[in-house]
Amino acid sequence: MSRDRDRSRSRSADRDVLEICWKPVKEDPTNFDAWTHLLQCVEQMDETRPAREAYDEFLKKYPYCYGYWRKYAELERRHKHYERCIDVYERGVTAISLSIDVWLSYLAFLKEYSRDKDGKEHKIRHLYERAISAAGLEFRSDKLWEDYINWELKQKNLPMVTALYDRLLKAPTQLYSQHFERFQEFVNSNAPDKILSEEEYDQIYKFVESELKDKNVEIYVVEEVREEAQENGDETPKTNNDLPAEGKTEYRKKYADEALKLFRVEILEKRRKLHLYNEQEVSKRWPFEEGIKRPYFHVKPLERAQLKNWRAYLDFEIGVGIHERVIVLFERCLIACAMYEDMWLRYARYLEGRNDVDIARAVYKRATTVHLPKKPGPHLAFAAFEEKNGKFDEAKSLLTDFDRKNPGYIMIQLRRIGVERRQAAHDARVRSTDDQEVAPDFAQVTATYEKHIRDPRTPTKMASFYALKFARFHAKVRGDKKLAEKIIKDALSRDKDNPQLYLQLIDLAFSATPFSEQAVVDAFDRGLHSQELPDYEKVRLSQRKLEFLEDLGTDIVALQEHFEYHTKLYKSVGGGSSGKRKAAEGKPEVAEKRAREDGVGAVPATVGADFGSPQQPQQQQYYGGQYYQQPPVAGFVAPQQFNQYGSYYYPPPY
Amino acid sequence: MSRDRDRSRSRSADRDVLEICWKPVKEDPTNFDAWTHLLQCVEQMDETRPAREAYDEFLKKYPYCYGYWRKYAELERRHKHYERCIDVYERGVTAISLSIDVWLSYLAFLKEYSRDKDGKEHKIRHLYERAISAAGLEFRSDKLWEDYINWELKQKNLPMVTALYDRLLKAPTQLYSQHFERFQEFVNSNAPDKILSEEEYDQIYKFVESELKDKNVEIYVVEEVREEAQENGDETPKTNNDLPAEGKTEYRKKYADEALKLFRVEILEKRRKLHLYNEQEVSKRWPFEEGIKRPYFHVKPLERAQLKNWRAYLDFEIGVGIHERVIVLFERCLIACAMYEDMWLRYARYLEGRNDVDIARAVYKRATTVHLPKKPGPHLAFAAFEEKNGKFDEAKSLLTDFDRKNPGYIMIQLRRIGVERRQAAHDARVRSTDDQEVAPDFAQVTATYEKHIRDPRTPTKMASFYALKFARFHAKVRGDKKLAEKIIKDALSRDKDNPQLYLQLIDLAFSATPFSEQAVVDAFDRGLHSQELPDYEKVRLSQRKLEFLEDLGTDIVALQEHFEYHTKLYKSVGGGSSGKRKAAEGKPEVAEKRAREDGVGAVPATVGADFGSPQQPQQQQYYGGQYYQQPPVAGFVAPQQFNQYGSYYYPPPY
Repeated sequence: MSRDRDRSRSRSADRDVLEICWKPVKEDPTNFDAWTHLLQCVEQMDETRPAREAYDEFLKKYPYCYGYWRKYAELERRHKHYERCIDVYERGVTAISLSIDVWLSYLAFLKEYSRDKDGKEHKIRHLYERAISAAGLEFRSDKLWEDYINWELKQKNLPMVTALYDRLLKAPTQLYSQHFERFQEFVNSNAPDKILSEEEYDQIYKFVESELKDKNVEIYVVEEVREEAQENGDETPKTNNDLPAEGKTEYRKKYADEALKLFRVEILEKRRKLHLYNEQEVSKRWPFEEGIKRPYFHVKPLERAQLKNWRAYLDFEIGVGIHERVIVLFERCLIACAMYEDMWLRYARYLEGRNDVDIARAVYKRATTVHLPKKPGPHLAFAAFEEKNGKFDEAKSLLTDFDRKNPGYIMIQLRRIGVERRQAAHDARVRSTDDQEVAPDFAQVTATYEKHIRDPRTPTKMASFYALKFARFHAKVRGDKKLAEKIIKDALSRDKDNPQLYLQLIDLAFSATPFSEQAVVDAFDRGLHSQELPDYEKVRLSQRKLEFLEDLGTDIVALQEHFEYHTKLYKSVGGGSSGKRKAAEGKPEVAEKRAREDGVGAVPATVGADFGSPQQPQQQQYYGGQYYQQPPVAGFVAPQQFNQYGSYYYPPPY
Repeated sequence: MSRDRDRSRSRSADRDVLEICWKPVKEDPTNFDAWTHLLQCVEQMDETRPAREAYDEFLKKYPYCYGYWRKYAELERRHKHYERCIDVYERGVTAISLSIDVWLSYLAFLKEYSRDKDGKEHKIRHLYERAISAAGLEFRSDKLWEDYINWELKQKNLPMVTALYDRLLKAPTQLYSQHFERFQEFVNSNAPDKILSEEEYDQIYKFVESELKDKNVEIYVVEEVREEAQENGDETPKTNNDLPAEGKTEYRKKYADEALKLFRVEILEKRRKLHLYNEQEVSKRWPFEEGIKRPYFHVKPLERAQLKNWRAYLDFEIGVGIHERVIVLFERCLIACAMYEDMWLRYARYLEGRNDVDIARAVYKRATTVHLPKKPGPHLAFAAFEEKNGKFDEAKSLLTDFDRKNPGYIMIQLRRIGVERRQAAHDARVRSTDDQEVAPDFAQVTATYEKHIRDPRTPTKMASFYALKFARFHAKVRGDKKLAEKIIKDALSRDKDNPQLYLQLIDLAFSATPFSEQAVVDAFDRGLHSQELPDYEKVRLSQRKLEFLEDLGTDIVALQEHFEYHTKLYKSVGGGSSGKRKAAEGKPEVAEKRAREDGVGAVPATVGADFGSPQQPQQQQYYGGQYYQQPPVAGFVAPQQFNQYGSYYYPPPY
């Protein structure tokens, strides 16, 4: 009774603790410390159900935390859930197949707990083989190799040991030279026929034989064995009759010393070649390996030096071009750099380069689902990958899913629209014949744009942003400038002080061929006459209008009148203020002259009149540019903003 | 002998002094103080030749310095060069016809020195009349009026005095009320018939007559005059026989008091109306007049308040619409604001508004030749004026002359080209018939552009500047994009690191309809592959290319590849540095998430991946915009420069 009560009491206490530990994790699943704290807590409770929940959740998010796979497995073992334990290990080695630790403890577990008498050895060897083929090329995999080798020694499976060394001596690992030493001992302390495969033995045998023939030396010597004499230690015979009977004498065959020497030299020489070659390989990689200060996973950012090192190392290994090594290196890199999307993209691109489409897809999946579910970059790349492979719908659903889970990325929306647009074009191409071309059906594109623009949840400025793109789409893709204009005007009716919309109207008028001067001027005036557009924005428009009329206009009256309008407007926003005020007010020539001499180009009475001199050909010299340099009034947007590219001299549509 | 030597010695000394005084003036003719010092020096020398030189030179530049006209004239008078003196005064009153001072001293001189007996009075009156008609409407012209009036009083020319008051009482001047008082005294202290013109007298007489008739009062009373009695003072007669003879009595006629009163009331009442009306006019102008703190000319700038006051005053007077007053006000204004080109333009535009073409031209001439010979603004306006009136060649020579005297104003060159362009179009229109349209001959335009571009003295960047305009001209006016492209490419061969040239190429490709995606991409790549273009410029191009491919591209592979190229490039210029370095290196999602939440939008691993959220629709949120906000590397041009308008979202050709 009371024990039950105690138990139940402690149970409810546990539940409280659990809740407390889960809370921060649920609030922010990226709070790594909270996670580790939760895992500590379940470890202390040492109850399977809560532990499993915690570990499963955690490892789904952070599969590269190898230590916790072990802890998890050990917990299951403690509780004698051996099947579950194996299951955890299996999940572990799948999640982080390069983790020597996980492999070793998996092996240790198997050795200790595997029940089936006959199959056990086979099972273990099989697991060793899986481990080696998965992680044997990991530079720090020595422990695993040694463990395997020692185990085979224990199994007295000497040829297998040799075979393992043959693989190991080819693998560039940290302790490569130590392995070769061990191998030498191993060879020198065992008879060749015991450690070699038959074919290698026969081959070397033939060689040794021929070597010795010339010297008339036999490979084997026969030695006499006097067993009794040694067995029953009676005194030395006094008479001949005391000699043992002929029949009692025995003989044994053994390697002649010379032969044995030759054998071992042969065995080792072959391996030394591997070893020396491997040594070179290792030395090439050594500096990179030394650069890896944090080979394990961590949420904290990596120093730039290490990232640089990883990139260089990858470039090197890709250059060498041994695919399996490249793969291993990528996998190692991604443990340390799991949070760096560019590494994932690098990996995927490498695989795409080899047309390993499915493997590449798998990598994209890992990146987007496991490690960087919240980063738009990898999702965009993944979508691009699917689209590239003609899977438009997959691309779209990838983007849509991401957007649902991580709303707010405009780029995702834009890409989504882009996919629709390209799909429409693609379908049209497919349906087109030599006889007749099918026009793309852009219904979806239009619908999506309109959805964004109309959606009441879209902030006005955002709606205008989409409107600008939508208009551009109609103007440039569908060649429908009228509609483009309408879209912008609609946007303007909602977002009246948006200079970009006015500029877009101007651009639409200006980019017509041939363009109508009046249309361009009207577009300018729409902005200049707007009630809502702030004066400093108008000054910009006015500036451009001045330049347009000056360079392409046909109406000198309009030009001169606007020139004076611009001057007034410019002054009204305090043009050329902050020290230039007087100048802006119109200044005795002295000032202007000086200005031109020292190349500052003070602003004279009319802004437009400050055109600088060829000695200062910077843009701002040409048209009252000076005043761009100093925000004359509070809140005046730093005017370089359009001075550099904004001015019509250098129209940058792209 | 020795006297001669002395004289010659002092002469040479004078020459030295002169040289010293002339030097700074010759070095910088805008050095006003140096001028005044020079004039002092010639005054002291008191020799006509050097004095004349100095005054002539100075007054050509500063004709509004009335004081010096007087000094100059007085110097001539001292030296008894009366004809020259008059000549100086004449030049003075022409140069600054509103200067009461100059007029008065001119008049004083004439009164004193005029020789011809009979014509003198006429001459003087004539000069007074000139003065009044020139300056009588100047608000501070009271002295002149009074002087004139007093002079006429001296001439006993009372009706003329009345006539003058009749004019003065209509003129809004500073001492308007004092004038009315004086006039009242004048009327009350003189007999009506003496001061009135005949017709006014008769008119009032009739009125008075009718008034008195009812009361049986005569206008005149007759009084007996006993001359003898007074003359020879004999004692009072004792007997009747002592009375003087009838024939000896005399009678005199004089105004009855009542009549005189009526006369004067009538005279004044008529004038009081004028006075009261004038008083209103004055009171309207009073605040403006009070705002004029510096009515005279000075090279130093005027405070803004006074400029504002002048503008307001002009607007007011123009509103009232009495032309002669507007003119006078403009002339007054331009004495105080001679250095303010906008005032001159205002004046000219007012006259143009009334189609007083020749007068307007004269004003432009004064502004450009006398007061602002070095300011491009007025010359541009003058040229525009001539061009407007179809005088293309005058316009061109105006610009050419200015350019010769004041080289270095790009705007002048551009306007010059513009005139050629418009003239060509105009001539074509003229030569066109309904049957066939004549194409404009742009040979001159092309030649001028090429001259500027080819001229070895044109700095490279300037040549590119002209090349950009030249290309635009061909593309937009002549519709020859091929040639435009060629021009830009030529410019690029000389000016390899000029981003604007690359942008122009992109624009040319992009603005084609339909545009070729490949052509646009090639244009981008020309810049991106350039050896000379600095990386931070490439980042901009790369940015635009990314946006182009995203929004209008048909090739997802190209898009994704450029996406990654851009990311690398962006990082290579230290994208997202200053605190964002780690972020730029690619940062655990936490960072990015936070960034998006607080709306800062930290830069994630791939720049392109930072698209902000709809909560921050500012441009820089969309495409790794963050890094625009912080110049990552020294010399990185403040990136807003193209962030605001530069981005292709808002292409501002104008």
